[in-house]
Amino acid sequence: MKLCNVAFAPENKSIQVREGATLLKAASLAGVHINASCGGAGTCGKCRAVIANGQFRSEPNIHLSDSEVSRGVVLSCLTVVEGDLSVEIPQEAQKGAGVRVDTGLGVGRELLKIGDREIQPRTKKIHLTLPRPTLSDNISDLSRLTRELRKQGYPGRDITCGLSVLQKLGPTLREGEWAVTVTLMWTQFGIEIMDVEAGDVTLSRYGLAIDVGTTTVVVYLVHLNTGDIIDVASDLNAQIRCGEDIISRIIYATEVGTVEEVHELVIGTIRTLVDTLTARNGIQPESLDSIVTSGNTTMTHLLYELDPRYIREEPYVPTTNFLPVIKASEIGINVNRNANIYAVPGTASYVGGDITAGILASRVHLSEALTIFIDIGTNGELVLGNQDWLVAASCSAGPAFEGGGVEFGMRASQGAIEGVEIDRQTHEPTCHVIGDTEPQGICGSGMIDVLAEMYLAGVIDQKGRFSEDLETDRVRPGDAGLEYVLVRRDPARGERDIVLTAADLDNILRTKGAIYAGLCTLLSEMNLTFHDVERFIIAGGFGNYIDIEKAIVIGLLPDLPQERFHFIGNSSITGAYLILLSKEMRLEAEEIARRMTYIELSVSRAFMDEYMSALFLPHTRLDDFPSVREILDKRR
Amino acid sequence: MKLCNVAFAPENKSIQVREGATLLKAASLAGVHINASCGGAGTCGKCRAVIANGQFRSEPNIHLSDSEVSRGVVLSCLTVVEGDLSVEIPQEAQKGAGVRVDTGLGVGRELLKIGDREIQPRTKKIHLTLPRPTLSDNISDLSRLTRELRKQGYPGRDITCGLSVLQKLGPTLREGEWAVTVTLMWTQFGIEIMDVEAGDVTLSRYGLAIDVGTTTVVVYLVHLNTGDIIDVASDLNAQIRCGEDIISRIIYATEVGTVEEVHELVIGTIRTLVDTLTARNGIQPESLDSIVTSGNTTMTHLLYELDPRYIREEPYVPTTNFLPVIKASEIGINVNRNANIYAVPGTASYVGGDITAGILASRVHLSEALTIFIDIGTNGELVLGNQDWLVAASCSAGPAFEGGGVEFGMRASQGAIEGVEIDRQTHEPTCHVIGDTEPQGICGSGMIDVLAEMYLAGVIDQKGRFSEDLETDRVRPGDAGLEYVLVRRDPARGERDIVLTAADLDNILRTKGAIYAGLCTLLSEMNLTFHDVERFIIAGGFGNYIDIEKAIVIGLLPDLPQERFHFIGNSSITGAYLILLSKEMRLEAEEIARRMTYIELSVSRAFMDEYMSALFLPHTRLDDFPSVREILDKRR
Repeated sequence: MKLCNVAFAPENKSIQVREGATLLKAASLAGVHINASCGGAGTCGKCRAVIANGQFRSEPNIHLSDSEVSRGVVLSCLTVVEGDLSVEIPQEAQKGAGVRVDTGLGVGRELLKIGDREIQPRTKKIHLTLPRPTLSDNISDLSRLTRELRKQGYPGRDITCGLSVLQKLGPTLREGEWAVTVTLMWTQFGIEIMDVEAGDVTLSRYGLAIDVGTTTVVVYLVHLNTGDIIDVASDLNAQIRCGEDIISRIIYATEVGTVEEVHELVIGTIRTLVDTLTARNGIQPESLDSIVTSGNTTMTHLLYELDPRYIREEPYVPTTNFLPVIKASEIGINVNRNANIYAVPGTASYVGGDITAGILASRVHLSEALTIFIDIGTNGELVLGNQDWLVAASCSAGPAFEGGGVEFGMRASQGAIEGVEIDRQTHEPTCHVIGDTEPQGICGSGMIDVLAEMYLAGVIDQKGRFSEDLETDRVRPGDAGLEYVLVRRDPARGERDIVLTAADLDNILRTKGAIYAGLCTLLSEMNLTFHDVERFIIAGGFGNYIDIEKAIVIGLLPDLPQERFHFIGNSSITGAYLILLSKEMRLEAEEIARRMTYIELSVSRAFMDEYMSALFLPHTRLDDFPSVREILDKRR
Repeated sequence: MKLCNVAFAPENKSIQVREGATLLKAASLAGVHINASCGGAGTCGKCRAVIANGQFRSEPNIHLSDSEVSRGVVLSCLTVVEGDLSVEIPQEAQKGAGVRVDTGLGVGRELLKIGDREIQPRTKKIHLTLPRPTLSDNISDLSRLTRELRKQGYPGRDITCGLSVLQKLGPTLREGEWAVTVTLMWTQFGIEIMDVEAGDVTLSRYGLAIDVGTTTVVVYLVHLNTGDIIDVASDLNAQIRCGEDIISRIIYATEVGTVEEVHELVIGTIRTLVDTLTARNGIQPESLDSIVTSGNTTMTHLLYELDPRYIREEPYVPTTNFLPVIKASEIGINVNRNANIYAVPGTASYVGGDITAGILASRVHLSEALTIFIDIGTNGELVLGNQDWLVAASCSAGPAFEGGGVEFGMRASQGAIEGVEIDRQTHEPTCHVIGDTEPQGICGSGMIDVLAEMYLAGVIDQKGRFSEDLETDRVRPGDAGLEYVLVRRDPARGERDIVLTAADLDNILRTKGAIYAGLCTLLSEMNLTFHDVERFIIAGGFGNYIDIEKAIVIGLLPDLPQERFHFIGNSSITGAYLILLSKEMRLEAEEIARRMTYIELSVSRAFMDEYMSALFLPHTRLDDFPSVREILDKRR
């Protein structure tokens, strides 16, 4: 077996791998991030690398131009290491700097109103002073402790104590000279003594709310006495290297790598974020008593190292929607060794705990108003209902709005085009770039803009096809049909122009069509129409940046008055935060997960019909979009 | 730091240790057993070794004769390694071959009558065939399983499932084509799904009953369907090298080594025994569902790695008498990873779960007859009572009957003198040796015999002092006063005569005196006398070999009719076995542990008075021993 040294610039990292390993694998082992939307299947064309020198073998593919190949550009997933290599990762394939993550502290915060309700976390710290043992009162240490707890009104019969606390009990009682702080944890069975510390440390009580997103992981550090959010940290989910959407992740976990490997990646991300938070705030990991996580069903399976295979296979069966409460130490998170993890329960394979958390945070389940709740993340989940009923569906929207399946698609990070205007006469674009820097690609809100603008400027027609009779060099033939040039760049510097291809347009149309069709199907299942919808809640970090008017122009959102739309940002973490602080909220969440009726769209004939009708701009039924019709009429 | 190589004959093992390590430590690291009753304190003089060659430094001590020192004999605990060494361990310091262990299958078995009661272990295996999931019935795997269990009458609400079972659930259901065997475990909170296996494996159900004795560990392999004891294995508790009695173990764990080290030793012994049993019987460790352990409070603390320090310090407080039910995997025993360990609860620091198990097995707690229960093991525990009340005490008898504190004392293994007769005229002894082999030392039953015989033959007087006017060379001056020569051996071969010294006699007298005084104190606390005692139960492996008549002669046992004495052998394991098979028995055991009233003898003035009176042969109050008086009268 030959070992090869692979060195990566600009990160200046290197790794030894066996001959025959892919370059993507080598990068992963070296801790070098390369974007790979498809998880290494060779289909997205994003994992570009430039081989400076060395031995390798690379499969031919449609993503690279001849000039790129001649400059040593390869796709990392299709490149096999055959000797020592020096590799450069171009900026467009690197992890974006400062990815824009919605930490839910904005709009979501308003919905919290946590001050109005009692803070009631699952753990409590109590300071006790015990009588010293004597020969006439020499009951065991544990009996002495529970006797005192009973005196203070806690029901003695149900108090349990695990091995690790017992192991420190004797020395701690004596170290504290019989004055100790006991951490009690309410479980489904009773009360567990989860820690004993010498002295009075009742003020050291922290918890974590964690949003385990397919793309990003967000962690709140919360003080359990006050409910205050002390600090927030977030990062990309390290599983990104196994694919951008949940299907790629499942394929990677079950066919390419292992469930354990993908599990360890997200645990690594969480661990780093938690360590950052504790270090930054000078908090002992032992004083983190409680964790609530929220994520879609696939993310939750991978977090708990459950085989996600059957989520993907018909009839789409998860192992469980209600996860058992486990010790954080069972999955290797460095907090108090007896701290529990509670995962927000979900409803089905494609409507998970993040949606339960979103409904909880937006109070749809208690509202009289008929509400649509939509989370446009990597997947697209939809909920319709009110206090009496809730139906939910997932519309397999695809990851286009997160950058997947679009040639220059990227997440909303530094260098992403997030807004576009196109001059109605010259067809020249004006781009707004996150960070006001050199553009690298286009993110979801930019896609909505560019689609709407191209349509309104006549660059594309109702079917999303390029007009062939425009007098502009912005539309030109590309490798696969016509394309629109958003940004011209210098080929001499190895840069490719940022374009939107016909295939990209198709993908975006399919994504928006699936979401709109999903909404129509849910409504008609309940014999309702958009006119009946009183509130339209858009969750997810991406939602915050959508231009509603343009989203209506492309037919992503229904043509409702602006005031009915509400952005609530990352409601997954908001829900987790609420549950962390309130038993009542936890019970509500479980009730929501049980009450929600899941409708499987993938086998629905009605959905397919709606989907076909929704692949137009804004829609086949232009009558349903009177405001768009008005704009179009004015233009003529 | 210099590393030294220490090679041991005859075991042919060697180890590298740092310069300055004791020879006892080196032997322990090399896995070579050296008897060290005192745990390495330099007081017992048993850890003899012969240095063939090499560099060492050895402390002078009173245990070795000049001729021994000149032959290279050292005490391992007082010898420091200073360079490479070749060491020989003489047979008397080696672990006895085939230690006689009472596995409780004898008399105890009669008390079982398990056939009369329902076998009701804490686990159950059920074969289920689930309906395959379809698009119209695609609930989660776990919901499908619990739905079926509910159909079969198990209460769905309380069924829980831990992480490791969830992790295998999806693949196992499909591997078994939806026909699976589910192992349910009844916990204090409800029912836990502890395993899921493909197909029908309902007949593979085993459990372990484990007696964790201070000296020996005994393991039963039990079939949980039938209650049959499939196999038994036993070995010395590897903690022996840290001292023979519980006080030496506590000192070692808290002052010499660590709690973890001593914990790991007994876990190692259990692990080896369990591995032996599974291998010998072709059983998968995964089919071991349930474990019940029984041991004294110190052994239980060390088994669970609880700090035993406070057991030894006044006011003698254990961490707990009721251990939590934990997973066997938490303390590293290789059985089903979700198998629970239930430790039989105890009453106080010196009356532990082994005594609860003994009372359970002997049914004292349900008997109308006033009963004394006595366990003469390494410690001496006493219980007095009946169905209405139970009082218990420990009399710190010391380990004399197990070989500790007696120059040639040893456990009842090959080469131990277990019976002695002394000619009334010549004072010549006749020895019965276990295994009919060369005698190496004297075990507990031998000590009782020799004391009784020396007394009746006039070698010693009522106070245990040697007669100075006998015409025999069997009594001779030794290093520390007079001694009686039991076996003459060849000094040319480096052998020492087997003798009983005045100090040995003192130790045996103190041991027997403490036990008898404890009994008297318990009785007088309850305003009773021996005449009220209808049953006298002697538990413990050692008990089986006692000659009752001679034990009465020395005043170890009260002068009651022979038929009132009952030997029940190792009732600790019998009780554990009963609890393994019956929930009712477990509840009875908990009731016993709660009901037993512990009386602290160490601070009792009455006990001290009784003890002083009991340091005679048979006792100061000869009137209490009419049968002995009769023998003495006849002799005159």
